[in-house]
This record gives sequence, C-alpha cells and structure tokens, in this order.
Amino acid sequence: MLSDVSIAQAHNLEPITDIAKRVGIDDEALIPYGHHMAKVDLSKIRKSDTPGKIILVTGVSPTPAGEGKSTVLIGLTDAMAKLGHKAMVALREPSLGPVMGIKGGAAGGGYSQVVPMENINLHFTGDFHAITSANNTLAALIDNHIQQGNALNIDPRRITWQRCLDVNDRSLRHVVTGLGGPKQGVPTETRFTITAASEIMAVLGLATDLEDLKARIANLTVGFTYDDEPVTAGDLGAQGALSALLKDAINPNLVQTLGGTPALIHGGPFANIAHGCNTLIATTTAQQYADIVLTEAGFGSDLGAEKFFDIKSRYGNFDVAGTVIVTTIRSMKYNGGVAREDLTNENLEALKSGIVNLERHVENIRKFGVKPVVAVNLFTSDTEAEREFMRQWADQFGVALAEANVWAEGGDGAIQLAETVLDNLVESSAPLYDNDKGVEAAIETIAREIYHADRVEYSNQARKDLETIKKNSWYTLPVCISKTQYSFSDDPKALGAPEGHTLHVRELLPRTGAGFIVALTGAVMTMPGLGKKPAADGIDVIDGKITGLF
Amino acid sequence: MLSDVSIAQAHNLEPITDIAKRVGIDDEALIPYGHHMAKVDLSKIRKSDTPGKIILVTGVSPTPAGEGKSTVLIGLTDAMAKLGHKAMVALREPSLGPVMGIKGGAAGGGYSQVVPMENINLHFTGDFHAITSANNTLAALIDNHIQQGNALNIDPRRITWQRCLDVNDRSLRHVVTGLGGPKQGVPTETRFTITAASEIMAVLGLATDLEDLKARIANLTVGFTYDDEPVTAGDLGAQGALSALLKDAINPNLVQTLGGTPALIHGGPFANIAHGCNTLIATTTAQQYADIVLTEAGFGSDLGAEKFFDIKSRYGNFDVAGTVIVTTIRSMKYNGGVAREDLTNENLEALKSGIVNLERHVENIRKFGVKPVVAVNLFTSDTEAEREFMRQWADQFGVALAEANVWAEGGDGAIQLAETVLDNLVESSAPLYDNDKGVEAAIETIAREIYHADRVEYSNQARKDLETIKKNSWYTLPVCISKTQYSFSDDPKALGAPEGHTLHVRELLPRTGAGFIVALTGAVMTMPGLGKKPAADGIDVIDGKITGLF
Repeated sequence: MLSDVSIAQAHNLEPITDIAKRVGIDDEALIPYGHHMAKVDLSKIRKSDTPGKIILVTGVSPTPAGEGKSTVLIGLTDAMAKLGHKAMVALREPSLGPVMGIKGGAAGGGYSQVVPMENINLHFTGDFHAITSANNTLAALIDNHIQQGNALNIDPRRITWQRCLDVNDRSLRHVVTGLGGPKQGVPTETRFTITAASEIMAVLGLATDLEDLKARIANLTVGFTYDDEPVTAGDLGAQGALSALLKDAINPNLVQTLGGTPALIHGGPFANIAHGCNTLIATTTAQQYADIVLTEAGFGSDLGAEKFFDIKSRYGNFDVAGTVIVTTIRSMKYNGGVAREDLTNENLEALKSGIVNLERHVENIRKFGVKPVVAVNLFTSDTEAEREFMRQWADQFGVALAEANVWAEGGDGAIQLAETVLDNLVESSAPLYDNDKGVEAAIETIAREIYHADRVEYSNQARKDLETIKKNSWYTLPVCISKTQYSFSDDPKALGAPEGHTLHVRELLPRTGAGFIVALTGAVMTMPGLGKKPAADGIDVIDGKITGLF
Repeated sequence: MLSDVSIAQAHNLEPITDIAKRVGIDDEALIPYGHHMAKVDLSKIRKSDTPGKIILVTGVSPTPAGEGKSTVLIGLTDAMAKLGHKAMVALREPSLGPVMGIKGGAAGGGYSQVVPMENINLHFTGDFHAITSANNTLAALIDNHIQQGNALNIDPRRITWQRCLDVNDRSLRHVVTGLGGPKQGVPTETRFTITAASEIMAVLGLATDLEDLKARIANLTVGFTYDDEPVTAGDLGAQGALSALLKDAINPNLVQTLGGTPALIHGGPFANIAHGCNTLIATTTAQQYADIVLTEAGFGSDLGAEKFFDIKSRYGNFDVAGTVIVTTIRSMKYNGGVAREDLTNENLEALKSGIVNLERHVENIRKFGVKPVVAVNLFTSDTEAEREFMRQWADQFGVALAEANVWAEGGDGAIQLAETVLDNLVESSAPLYDNDKGVEAAIETIAREIYHADRVEYSNQARKDLETIKKNSWYTLPVCISKTQYSFSDDPKALGAPEGHTLHVRELLPRTGAGFIVALTGAVMTMPGLGKKPAADGIDVIDGKITGLF
C-alpha cells in the first residue's frame, strides 16, 4: 500500500491560480505562497447574493480504530465537484507539535488528501507562527508592565495568560519564569500551552474581520488586579500590535484536493478547550464562491458539532444545510466492546451492541434542526454481512446512510454519499440553547440533550468561577464544554451511549476574547508530550524532498 | 520630515518577477510570497563563470548618534545600479523582538530602504519562525530522550541547548522547566534566548547547501553525558526533522530597494555570540547574478567585519574586493567626548580627537588585504568646516573618502561614493589568522592586531573550557569573539582608540554546529527586555495598513 506522502508527492498539482478560477476567485484576490498555495485577501473577497450551502461533517465518538473523518470530508468534496457543483472544502490547519510527535496525517489520506501536504503539515503559510508571536508578545507586555511599575496593579500570582509554542514538549507544562533577581522580572509559576490551545487561535477562529479581531483581542482577559478586577489586553494597549502580527494570518489559505477542488485550510483551535473548527472567515469566504461548502468540526457530535452550531454558527450568523456523521464498522465494533487487535474479524453481535453510539449521534444532530446522513467509511476488513447490517439498521432507525470508499477511490468513492447528502438538505438550522439564560442553563441543556446526563455537579472552584463570571457580565456568553471525546459522559471509559450519569464541572474559564466560557469537566492536556519513538525520528529531507512525514 | 514607514508605503513597488529579471533570475527559480517578495529556489540558482565582486560595508564603533550603515549600504547599491552595474545587496533579516521593543528600522531609512518594509520587519517569509521551531523541537527531543529512559546517559544538569523565542522578554532569561512531577519531565534550570541568538541561526548563516546544513545540525553540541562526553543533535537523530523544518528557510529571500535594485535579505545571527552577517548562501547567490554584490556585517570592523573575513569568507571560500567604513561627523564627535545632546553643535576639536576611532578601523580593515573607503553619511547638522576637516584628514591619512547623502536622496546621494569604491577594488582578501594554530593563537592575533590589546587573560572557567575544546578536537575551529561593540577593548566606556589594555576571556563556548568557538569577554545579553514604552504600544493596523511601525 502506498503511503499518504508518496501518493501526495506523485500527484501533479495544478497552479493555485487555476484552482481559484474554478470557483471564480480572481487573481487579484490571491496572495501567492509558492505556486500551489495562496492566501485569499480578505479585503478583496466578493459578496455573493446566494451564499453556498454549508454541510458539516462530524463523526461518531472517536476510537483507536480511526474513523477517517477528514478523508471522507475531502472525498465528498471531490464527489460534489464531480456532480457538477461549485464545491469548496474548509478545514483546519494541522499543528506542528503533533506532526513531530505522532505518525498520522492531518490532511486526509490516500486519494482523498489536500496538497501540497508537506507544506500544509509543516509551516504552511505561517499562521500558527503568527499566533505564537502574538500570544508571546502579549505575555512579554504583561510581565514588562509589572516590571516597569505595574500601573494597572496586576497581581503577578493571578496572571491567567500563558505563553505558547507549537511543539510537543512536556517540560513546558509547569515552569517558573522571571528568576535571576530584580532585573530579570518577577518570579512567576506558569505554563506553556501548544499554540492550538492559545486563546488567540480561538479568537482568529471566530473573528469576522480585522476590526472584529482587534476588538476580540482587546477583550482578552490576561489576569486580575490585587482588587480582583479583570485585566484585559486592551488595558495594556496590546490590540494594535497583536492585530498587526495577525494581519496576514487572518486571510484564509487556499490549496487543492487531489481531485483539484479548491480547499480553504485556516485556523486550528482545540476541540475541547476551544470550539475546534476551521475559521469562521474560511467558512464564510467559501460561501461567497461555492454552491456547496463542506466543512468539519473536531471529535463527535457531542463536542465539535455542538460547538459548531452553538458557538460558530451563532457568531457567524449562518445556517447549516446538511450534516454527515462519519462512522466505520470497526469503530462501532470497538464501541461494542471488541479489542483493538480483533477489529478486523467479523462480529455482528458487537456491531449491534456498539451501534447505539451512532444512534445517539444521529439523535443529537437532529436537535439542531438538520437531517443527518450517516457515511460508512469502508475498510477492506469490513464483511458483506456487516455492511448489510448497517444498511438494515439505517432503514429501521430511519436515517439516510451511504457507504464511502474515499481512501482508495477519492471522489469517485463518495458519489452516492454526495447524492444522499444533497437529498437531505434543509433550509435552516438552530443552536440548541438560548445563551441569554446564562451559563448554568446552557450547560444543563447540553448535558441533558446531548450527553444524556441526569444532573450537573459544580465543584467549589466552579461555583467561585460562576460568581466571577456573573460579577463581570460574562454570564450570557455561550459555553464551550471541555469533555473527553471518547464518551458522551465525562468518563472516557463509558463507551456506547451512557445514560443517567452526572456531569462534573470542575472549573469555568472565561475566554472573553474568543467569546465563550470554557467548562472543564476533566483534566485537559493543553501541552502534549513526545512518545518513546517520536515521528521526528523518521522525518528527513533528501534532495530537497521531505520523506517520512507519515 | 516623513517617517520611514510613510516613505516606504507611498512607494510604488515593482512586481518581484520584474526585479528578478533585472539581474537575470528566471521566474522558475522564484517561489513567490505575495507579489513583492520571493524565495530564490536554491536548487535552481545558476552558476556564474564570473561571480560578482563582493563589497563589504562596515562601520566605526557604534554610538548613540547612529551611523546609518544599512542606509548607506542600500543607497550605495542603488548608486551602483545607476552607474550601469548589475548590482545586488545582501543583508540581514530584522528580528521581531526588537521591532516590538525599540522604535527604529532595520531595513534602511528615508529613500534608502528595502521594501515591503512592514513585511520585512514582521514575519517576512517565516525564516525566523522556522528557526524557532527547529530550535525548540530539538529542545523537546532532548528532554524527551531523558524522560524516555536516557539511553545516551545525558546529564540533565549539563544540557547546553536552550529554547528560543523571537520576542523581547526578560522573564525568559532564567527559568525552570519540567516541574510538576515525574510525568512532566525532569526539573531543569535553563534559559530562553532570542531567536537571532540560536545556534541554528548561525548554522543557517554558514551552511552552503541543504546537505551542509544537515551535517552542521548533526554537529550541534546539546550537552554532556554523565561521563563528560559531548552529546550532539546527531546522537539524537534530530538532523533530518530539523532540516525538514528549515527546507524553505534555506532559500534566500528576494525583495527590492526603493531604487528598484534586487535585494537578498536572509538570516540574522547576533554579531557578538555569532558572526553577525546575512547568510553565506545569500551572498554567494547574489554573486551568481550580479557584477557587484554589496553586503554588510554587524557593528564595527573589530566585530562584524573581522568575523566576515575570518569566519564567513573562510567557510564560503570567497574574496572581498572592497570595504566601505561608514561614519558620521556626529559619531566622531561622540568618540571625541561630546554628549549626545550636544552633537548638533559644530565642534572641530572633538572631531579631531574622536577621529582616532575611524583611523583604527581603517588600519584594521587594511589587515585583511583590502583598500577601505570611508563613507561620511551626512546629517543636516554637519557644518561645512566639519566636512572640510574630514576631507583634509582623509588626504593626510591616505585613505579614500566620499560623502553620502542617502537618507534624503537615495542612490543619487551615493554616486560619488560608488565611484570611489569602484576605484579601490582589489583582487583578493585574506583572513587575519591561521586557524590551524589553535584557539589561543587566534584570540591573541585578533586581540593584538585588531583590538590593540597588550595581553589576553583567561578566567579559570575559560581554561577549563580550553581543555574540553582540546579534548574534543574543536581546537582548530575559528573563533568568534563576543565583545562590547562600543569600544575596541572589552570596556564599553573606553571610546576612541584604546591601546595596551587586557582582553579578559571569561568563557569559551563551543559552537560545533556553526563551526566556531565563541570567546565571551563580557556579559552578553541573549534575551533583550522591553522598555518603559515598548514600540508595540504605537503599532496598529488600520484598514489593513500597518501604522506606527517606526
């Protein structure tokens, strides 16, 4: 079997200007980065009278079996183009840290990839680096403000702003900075997060334009004063310099699928402590040029999709016309209790028992007013009996289902899926809750409707956080629940479709720049580490060509 | 008076492909970054039979008066083009940290600038970010190796590799990482440097191609084992991944001067703990296309120029045909004891007494086998009597001198300077010392010949370092002396042309990747801080346009 990187490198890429023309993006709106990548100049994007329909691709609860959500998304996009639609795909940028850490692509796979994959997986057009710069410039401005007299009365023990780096480095999880005496700053216990977890990533992800970006940056809470008042980046006058650093990063990046369909890859916020989708700007830009905009959200319907409807669509003020839930037969068997190493054996009993997970995702998605389509991403180990079981289940359950064979066939493997999706479009979608009712109401609605929890329990810290949130008029921001992706509950071991559990809210973090309240329900890793055999060990560049990337 | 940024923004830039054609760079060798910047693909650079002549622009000892070395360099380049030469300029990339810290351009000034200046001064084509990534990926690989069992027996107390960020942040000068318990790494006392001070910056600066870059990375010493043996990046197998991260950064960046002359801006190593010039690749690339290649080296002849001849020319195996020493009348008066606020008053006595500094730089440069030309960069406060004094001094001292008025007039203000430079070219240049004789011999030669020191004194630490250097066969590497730029001695207060002093070598740092031994003769700041009023406060982006950059 060919590797993803060798398939991608064997492909003959079209000039990015030709790709852009396919959906009517003028040369003058393009800022080239090499011959196969470009930024689309935000100030030159046309306004369409008939913006494209948005189709959200989400998945079942992730398992070690792998669902191939991005691969289906990209194959489906190429299938839409093959059916004669002006199609575009909008997806997230990969993070460099994991690229050096874990083998495995973040740009699709097989014949359903976005290219040039080496660039996309390494520095791409520098957006993450710009975010790292902006994030750490703000950190330097905060510490410098304290060092130079602390006119704002910032309590150095209560700085909430953290530095970031796009690297997997466990040694940066807990650090002390500012050591070395009075000329070297104030000793501070702090952390580095990975760049994808920076609130600036979330800000870029939700900004509608440069002015909105600047306003959101000004609203970033960076800590508290000795008098318990929040301190913002705006109080430090940092929004101008940070926006200047993000001036290019705000323009979405245009590349191509292996099928030659235009793809916007832009932004990459975490799907637990942030909302986990590509930028709002990329999605709405694609709408101006394409009839059909395919896009994705991290993890399953309980995390990425819920946040897509409740945070991103809300801020972007757009509707979702269709939703695809990607599953695999292997992953349903895993949810039915089969061990990872046994997933290639036929097991109808396990499939039957694990499919409750998919059922729950289907029910969830319907709550946002859309008609979900189940995409079964085929693997060579799937048996005819298992496939037939899935088809019959869909009939009985009353949901549209189509198989996809995108890794091997690209867009050709998703034609039937595309047709099924087009048959199940709706005019409008809706968020799940009314954010005017406050943080607890939002959390309880999600917990009840999406997680099937019986109750929500707040820790003492979370209750204290709620007071701070109420006091500072952050009470009506939408919530972004940080929960394990492996279960509908906050217990990663509870697979399938658990009911009647308790959701434990441990902390509530105001993300006043991004514009949501993060509800932590478990330990969140915001700085990954490297494994025993990091992917970096196998990466090389030989005769100017990257090898071993995946 | 117009600001540099408003002059630059009012300028009508030519497409970078047209600029490239001016010296015969084919479109197919260009990798565009927008319409006015491009990387020149190293694999597609032509080999000229008659490589261009290299003219090095250096300066007197820097003073707070400012000498305008880059401004003269850029104006002189435009003047060469006006005289009908195929001219190119090669210079360093600005560092983002200082751009946010100190007002003041790093891309020339007035009508002698390189453009687009906002891009050049912010992220440019991402080279510094790639270096930051490579540097910190290596740091993560080192710590991860220890965490995962430490097969190489690395002593965590003796890791010499430091993390870096392109930010002015004093709080990162002394940090402790790896806190939080056994799953979060090994507690380690360490530092962050600014990216320009990373050894990877020096490596990129001296590499001749991608293979050489990879070999130099493999040679980076990152620490020592418990048995006192050096550990390299090659021992960790990191050279492949790091080279992949630097694959694009190694290609030099093409932009234009305000006069429309092609400029390569590439690399930016510190001029004290590194060699302080643009990359060897940029200089030799320019030679393949231009007849005349103008380039620069940091600080005065004692630092940048010495390292240009003794390190860069040695590794690049090229000759320097001419050298320009930039001075100002104000700076000579400052060397003659005039306070900064009185520099605009005529003072012939001070000028006469301060000019010994210039004399010493002229004598120094001659020791490398070239014929220096003095460029007097004119300021409006210079009086006719002062200018006449300079001319007469040059006649008496027997050195060629020409005035330049480049800030106001661009290339037109440097025609006479260009002609004088062309009249003073030589066929070959030579390094000052034979590196086969070892580290002390090299240091003593530079101290005696360039600094006019009577003796060199080694600290106990430096003597210990010498033993390590001898033991590990690093003894014949060239030396890179880190000394204050304000004086020929290691005492920053000793202006003019001090004699008979003692050079104090405090530490010797092997830079086995870059390929030199750093001799520290004083405290070196490798991570700047921000001031009371950081430049960031004034930077903004309004209607997509950067303001307040300078």
